[in-house]
Amino acid sequence: MQDKCGIVGIYSHNTSENISYSLYYGLYALQHRGQESAGISLHNGQRMKTYQGMGLVCDVFNNGNLDKLKGNVGIGHVRYSTTGKSLLENSQPFYSEFQGGSIAIAHNGDIINSHELREELKAQGHHIRSSTDSEVICHMLSREYIKNQDMIQCIQEVSQKLIGSYSLVVLVNNDLYVVRDPVGLKPLALGEKGDIKMVASETVAFDVIGAQLIRDVEPGEIILLNNKTYSYKMKNVHNMPRAHCMFEYVYFARPDSYIDGRNVYQVRLNIGQELYKQFPAEADVVMPIPDSAITAAIGYSRSSGLPYGEGLIKNRYIGRTFIMPTQGEREASVKLKMNPIKSELEGKRIVLVDDSIVRGTTSRALIDVLKETGVEEIHLRIGCPPIISPCYYGVAMATKKELIAANNTLNDIHKILGVDSLGYLSLDSLVKCIGIGQDRLCTGCFNEEYPTTLPKDLVYQA
Amino acid sequence: MQDKCGIVGIYSHNTSENISYSLYYGLYALQHRGQESAGISLHNGQRMKTYQGMGLVCDVFNNGNLDKLKGNVGIGHVRYSTTGKSLLENSQPFYSEFQGGSIAIAHNGDIINSHELREELKAQGHHIRSSTDSEVICHMLSREYIKNQDMIQCIQEVSQKLIGSYSLVVLVNNDLYVVRDPVGLKPLALGEKGDIKMVASETVAFDVIGAQLIRDVEPGEIILLNNKTYSYKMKNVHNMPRAHCMFEYVYFARPDSYIDGRNVYQVRLNIGQELYKQFPAEADVVMPIPDSAITAAIGYSRSSGLPYGEGLIKNRYIGRTFIMPTQGEREASVKLKMNPIKSELEGKRIVLVDDSIVRGTTSRALIDVLKETGVEEIHLRIGCPPIISPCYYGVAMATKKELIAANNTLNDIHKILGVDSLGYLSLDSLVKCIGIGQDRLCTGCFNEEYPTTLPKDLVYQA
Amino acid sequence: MQDKCGIVGIYSHNTSENISYSLYYGLYALQHRGQESAGISLHNGQRMKTYQGMGLVCDVFNNGNLDKLKGNVGIGHVRYSTTGKSLLENSQPFYSEFQGGSIAIAHNGDIINSHELREELKAQGHHIRSSTDSEVICHMLSREYIKNQDMIQCIQEVSQKLIGSYSLVVLVNNDLYVVRDPVGLKPLALGEKGDIKMVASETVAFDVIGAQLIRDVEPGEIILLNNKTYSYKMKNVHNMPRAHCMFEYVYFARPDSYIDGRNVYQVRLNIGQELYKQFPAEADVVMPIPDSAITAAIGYSRSSGLPYGEGLIKNRYIGRTFIMPTQGEREASVKLKMNPIKSELEGKRIVLVDDSIVRGTTSRALIDVLKETGVEEIHLRIGCPPIISPCYYGVAMATKKELIAANNTLNDIHKILGVDSLGYLSLDSLVKCIGIGQDRLCTGCFNEEYPTTLPKDLVYQA
Amino acid sequence: MQDKCGIVGIYSHNTSENISYSLYYGLYALQHRGQESAGISLHNGQRMKTYQGMGLVCDVFNNGNLDKLKGNVGIGHVRYSTTGKSLLENSQPFYSEFQGGSIAIAHNGDIINSHELREELKAQGHHIRSSTDSEVICHMLSREYIKNQDMIQCIQEVSQKLIGSYSLVVLVNNDLYVVRDPVGLKPLALGEKGDIKMVASETVAFDVIGAQLIRDVEPGEIILLNNKTYSYKMKNVHNMPRAHCMFEYVYFARPDSYIDGRNVYQVRLNIGQELYKQFPAEADVVMPIPDSAITAAIGYSRSSGLPYGEGLIKNRYIGRTFIMPTQGEREASVKLKMNPIKSELEGKRIVLVDDSIVRGTTSRALIDVLKETGVEEIHLRIGCPPIISPCYYGVAMATKKELIAANNTLNDIHKILGVDSLGYLSLDSLVKCIGIGQDRLCTGCFNEEYPTTLPKDLVYQA
Repeated sequence: MQDKCGIVGIYSHNTSENISYSLYYGLYALQHRGQESAGISLHNGQRMKTYQGMGLVCDVFNNGNLDKLKGNVGIGHVRYSTTGKSLLENSQPFYSEFQGGSIAIAHNGDIINSHELREELKAQGHHIRSSTDSEVICHMLSREYIKNQDMIQCIQEVSQKLIGSYSLVVLVNNDLYVVRDPVGLKPLALGEKGDIKMVASETVAFDVIGAQLIRDVEPGEIILLNNKTYSYKMKNVHNMPRAHCMFEYVYFARPDSYIDGRNVYQVRLNIGQELYKQFPAEADVVMPIPDSAITAAIGYSRSSGLPYGEGLIKNRYIGRTFIMPTQGEREASVKLKMNPIKSELEGKRIVLVDDSIVRGTTSRALIDVLKETGVEEIHLRIGCPPIISPCYYGVAMATKKELIAANNTLNDIHKILGVDSLGYLSLDSLVKCIGIGQDRLCTGCFNEEYPTTLPKDLVYQA
Repeated sequence: MQDKCGIVGIYSHNTSENISYSLYYGLYALQHRGQESAGISLHNGQRMKTYQGMGLVCDVFNNGNLDKLKGNVGIGHVRYSTTGKSLLENSQPFYSEFQGGSIAIAHNGDIINSHELREELKAQGHHIRSSTDSEVICHMLSREYIKNQDMIQCIQEVSQKLIGSYSLVVLVNNDLYVVRDPVGLKPLALGEKGDIKMVASETVAFDVIGAQLIRDVEPGEIILLNNKTYSYKMKNVHNMPRAHCMFEYVYFARPDSYIDGRNVYQVRLNIGQELYKQFPAEADVVMPIPDSAITAAIGYSRSSGLPYGEGLIKNRYIGRTFIMPTQGEREASVKLKMNPIKSELEGKRIVLVDDSIVRGTTSRALIDVLKETGVEEIHLRIGCPPIISPCYYGVAMATKKELIAANNTLNDIHKILGVDSLGYLSLDSLVKCIGIGQDRLCTGCFNEEYPTTLPKDLVYQA
Repeated sequence: MQDKCGIVGIYSHNTSENISYSLYYGLYALQHRGQESAGISLHNGQRMKTYQGMGLVCDVFNNGNLDKLKGNVGIGHVRYSTTGKSLLENSQPFYSEFQGGSIAIAHNGDIINSHELREELKAQGHHIRSSTDSEVICHMLSREYIKNQDMIQCIQEVSQKLIGSYSLVVLVNNDLYVVRDPVGLKPLALGEKGDIKMVASETVAFDVIGAQLIRDVEPGEIILLNNKTYSYKMKNVHNMPRAHCMFEYVYFARPDSYIDGRNVYQVRLNIGQELYKQFPAEADVVMPIPDSAITAAIGYSRSSGLPYGEGLIKNRYIGRTFIMPTQGEREASVKLKMNPIKSELEGKRIVLVDDSIVRGTTSRALIDVLKETGVEEIHLRIGCPPIISPCYYGVAMATKKELIAANNTLNDIHKILGVDSLGYLSLDSLVKCIGIGQDRLCTGCFNEEYPTTLPKDLVYQA
Repeated sequence: MQDKCGIVGIYSHNTSENISYSLYYGLYALQHRGQESAGISLHNGQRMKTYQGMGLVCDVFNNGNLDKLKGNVGIGHVRYSTTGKSLLENSQPFYSEFQGGSIAIAHNGDIINSHELREELKAQGHHIRSSTDSEVICHMLSREYIKNQDMIQCIQEVSQKLIGSYSLVVLVNNDLYVVRDPVGLKPLALGEKGDIKMVASETVAFDVIGAQLIRDVEPGEIILLNNKTYSYKMKNVHNMPRAHCMFEYVYFARPDSYIDGRNVYQVRLNIGQELYKQFPAEADVVMPIPDSAITAAIGYSRSSGLPYGEGLIKNRYIGRTFIMPTQGEREASVKLKMNPIKSELEGKRIVLVDDSIVRGTTSRALIDVLKETGVEEIHLRIGCPPIISPCYYGVAMATKKELIAANNTLNDIHKILGVDSLGYLSLDSLVKCIGIGQDRLCTGCFNEEYPTTLPKDLVYQA
């Protein structure tokens, strides 16, 4: 399960300040949101420069290319591709020239109707090179601009046509436009530090440069950062439900981030606590499947009074080019990633906490490894409800056919996984743990209630 | 002085034939027309693939990437950038998706009004990413296509708007369109071999795969290669003068090429012969400045009966990354490229043949080196008239300010270069040597009579 | 603080089995012991091949080069350089030809008298290319071999001259020799799986391929793996104290490893427990400095009943080329690596557990960050005694001048770090936690009692 | 046919001068002697640094690595491998530490008894890593040094044991030793420029930095360049025949070089002249097979009065990674390298001049191409006698079995090649053309009279 991207934008009122290194550190803090490619676009008052590359932020950028990217305003992007088309041409920001000058766009989210929009653009005589939503949006903005030279107006018009999730930073010459879709699916926060105004997918990007969180960007808000900070509301914002992605809290975001007012670590502690309340267990130790379930396991341990332990050690060095075993040794393959600690597990009854179950295949392989290590009882606790439907807003899960909970009863899942007890956090409890209100959360993958219309011909592509 | 590009296109009637290696060898034969980047686009009946890279053909392509590029129809391109923007994003073919499917374009030439066309496209809501004419043409074709789904018609319409030189290969799905501008500035020839039809900037690309020249593509001709070979005439072709670039014969093309019916080697022999007739000299030996003037020097030697010699040895290993001396040692710098042979030069009276003089700086440095080596007399013979005006059609020369013959009399040039006699081939003689007729040659750089209109705000960019 | 290397060796009795991928996975499991370079040497019965490269195991090796490295016997190495000479020529295995055929050597440890041995070799007419101990040992073995064609005898003789720590795998043609120094400073374990016999620095290398631990290689043992498994005792082994490195348990080794019979995770749990017994604290939460102190913090939490928490989130993406801030912002620099979670820290009294303190500079910066985040009280607990002297056996710590505990009283350290209480685990307790007996552990860095002689002119190089 | 290497050494009396760029330009001028790898070792009075890489001089070196290689004394090497083992570890200079300090060695030539010397070294307890003679010589010097701390004496002793060809530059700390084998097989010249003394395989390396030739290094001479220039004679120099390699004049060396007092261009003019005298022909044009036979063809043209022409155009862009056609199309394969010019060839009787014939396969393919182009008569003239025996001194030719002239009569060769007449220059004439005296030339490949003993078990490896 992977989110698609992290974005960051910085504007310094000190026009002689070079913010390229701040963008670099900001992207580095968002690295968990995308490890496939990284890119930065900067404007220095005269012209825009972009540098992109495949790989980690620390591999793509070095003093050489960062020193050439000078400017007081810019945007950055880290990308994880869900389509397998891991190509440089799909890396972001997408940049171009248009009637209004230079433009660069970085996007986190997924435009559901992008296929229609692409066909529409082609039917209007445009050609399209990449498979990114950023290029589609760039075409639409360019097209809009010739009718109306006001970029805010252009963004307004384009937004009316976009269905899906989009947190955007758009650099138009040395103006930085910040856009969050009216539903607010993807996170986006506004911070500051001295002369600098900054936006980022997660607040951890503020921390690394010492910036302070001001507030979240509002769903349906367009912010213009230049000599001043301007805020606009999208036209349709009142008609739309708010629906923040629950999985940011459950899985994606770093625990040290604050998302839409809630600290992720605290939410996960709550999840552990609620899991205990709903599904207590007699056991010797509480253990997470690392890393995403660590905080929830701590929460369970605290509530239950059961000791916390780390019986699975995660190898942190799996890179893009790691060769996984191709042969049938499922056990060895699991142990390359997570190795059990016999002394902590043998003869023990364990509460095993995971954030979620998608296909169930990894869970099952891990459970087999734990049993072979000598675990006596496994009480599996899941920090969210059963996933019964795909995400259409940028979370790469699986097709409905592959989702274990879409095709099996809880009883069946219990048996398939071979655990002694199984508890999924209820949707109500999850909402309570997050503390925002179900009317403001996207619960599509749990109950198929999606906050936007879905095109009829929509096919989920894993 | 550099031309900008070489192009090649191949269509095999045998749809199971893979022509990627033939494109590779074709580009290799055209390597002298561009060493900065190379690229190939192929269509295999199902989909189009493109591979590009910076550097020589033999560095960009290997068995690995060529084997992945399978198809029976495709185009290739080698590029030399005249702007200093030596970027991967400017490499060709330019490829994209549009309403008609997939498209890839490779271009040799220079669209004089590209700035206007770009502004026009932007004013119509398009954005433009690269600085290539190919992208501009791709936009125009996409735009035209929505009015008129006939690609031939689209090319017709777009051609009416293009001013300048363009030899194009355009791959639209698995149809190969071949276009030569109505003036015929850049060369383009049609060949065949078995199931294969082939076009290329120079006939040497045919030789390396054993194809035979059929004929030159006509100025103002559009050829469609698919299951059959179709030929169309551009609408305005009768109103336009024909004007083949003289410098292809004088300098750019390989001597083993046939361009618009004339063998380059033969033309250069004629040039040497005419130079002797116009400017005989009492001398001990006739020598070229290698490599481009070798054939003309042979011609001079044959006519004059003076012995031919090679008193300057060219080092053939200067790559893209060679570090030239930065210090003031002009002589050493010259000798890195061309080293004099004392035994052939000392005490001798030489006829020194060069193809042309642009700025005059290299000539002067070489002449100094020759004198220091002990040459007694230097009779400089130039294979074309004085260059008094820039080329706007894709030959990177220099600005008017830098052209030695635009700013000095022949007498002054004689003195500046410090030679004992100086002879420039007259325009009439050059025309005679080429053997095509002045009404069919572009002589703009010699007499400022350009075959197309020139935009008023045209600024020559070296 | 860094150890220098990890080693692995594999012999398969099935001579047609290719063990290159097993070596790859083994090295991958040992990646935490060295991220600078990786290498593998294999023998296939006919000849030896070696492949090495800079970087992580998953970056150096791919299907391409692994498939070319075929053989049923081989060795592997991951390296971390402590000297700053991060050069390919220092990567291991060191391989060569000698009178006995082909040889390759991989080494974990540090030969204290290598400078003398080098000078001795030079004085005997040898030249030495790299700065590795492996090359020195290879010279010594080659030299010994001409007197005595028995490799076991050669290793015996060479061992008498080596002072320091050395766990070695030596591939001589298709015989695999395994050597552990008589003191047993560095770990080395023997495992098996089907036809395979395997040795590795840590048992986690067995787990990833499904091999089982047989036993540790004995200090002073030489094992020969070929058609059978032979074991030999070094001559001087009875005169030497056993002295396993304590820091393997405290810091280096993965918690899931078993080293000299003891599970690292269990030792660290014990350390946490003992820390609580010796230094209880009234606090709201127990937290580790991740990752190495996690298990000890869990132990402290379990004993004390205080809740476990993870108030510092470690960024896991710092690569070799990451650009650290050069300016004075110490806080920002710390937060790039570890970011505090306000909700877990603000207003809290925390027990902060770390494995050790070397210079004290990082600890102090982290403590400042925690205070600025609003921590009310910090009770620092250290999982080992004060480090008062450098390690000469391959642990890169610091010079004596830099060690905070070598130059300050406990009281001073308490003040310098600015914590509310400070507790270092006593040496007796640490010995008890490890459970091996002080007479079998190296405690040099805590009490300057080193298990081997130290050359007079020994200079510690950080 | 390929020579193995080019070497250069520079000492500047101005100890603050950095000669790294001069070495770079020197190597660049010698690039024709080896395109596989390049390397430079420099000493700056304090320590020695070496940088090496695979590929052309201009690819291996850049401002970055050259600026780090500072020093007033150094050596450089370009390598062509004849063995197929194109490995970085075989690139030169070979550098190491030994009792006398730092040493780096660059070698042009071939040590015939290197196999014996290697076995001897192994039997003395040395291990050997690379397959270069430089490493063997380094071992021998290190070994000698412990008996005798005088490097001149060491070189003397080692020279007595070396059989074969060796022009060496040896950097020992900041002393530069220059050695030429007593037979003088490989060229080596001494030059100067201001504070600089310089040696190089060919004088063209002097020209590019503006240095002047002083004299050739004498066969059997050892020169020490440091604060002064010292010259020593090898002990056995009087017993040895002088035997300069004829092929330097015929083929390898650049025409602008002076080798052992003779200008290569002039020698080749003589060869052409002699070929005409011995083998006149009635023909329309004289043509070389480019590039090595150009000068000889000019000589033939001058003597005969027949016009000179260049009917074959050589493609100059074949790089290391060029993919040659694998299929049977011999003609296409030839034309990738050399393309015929129909207008110059059709219906013509030509004198075709080549420098030599080794296997005859390339000649035959070219002759076929020429005939298919319409050449009426081909009179082939070869600038040296028939090659009947391999070279053991560093020229990669072929095995005796492959040499066309070792296995066929002249009549047969005439028929196999399918030419109208065939003339090989006689050995006497070649000697006369070179102008040195047969007693001072190596004629082994023409008459099997080799200037050194040949080991019995010597196997020629192509």
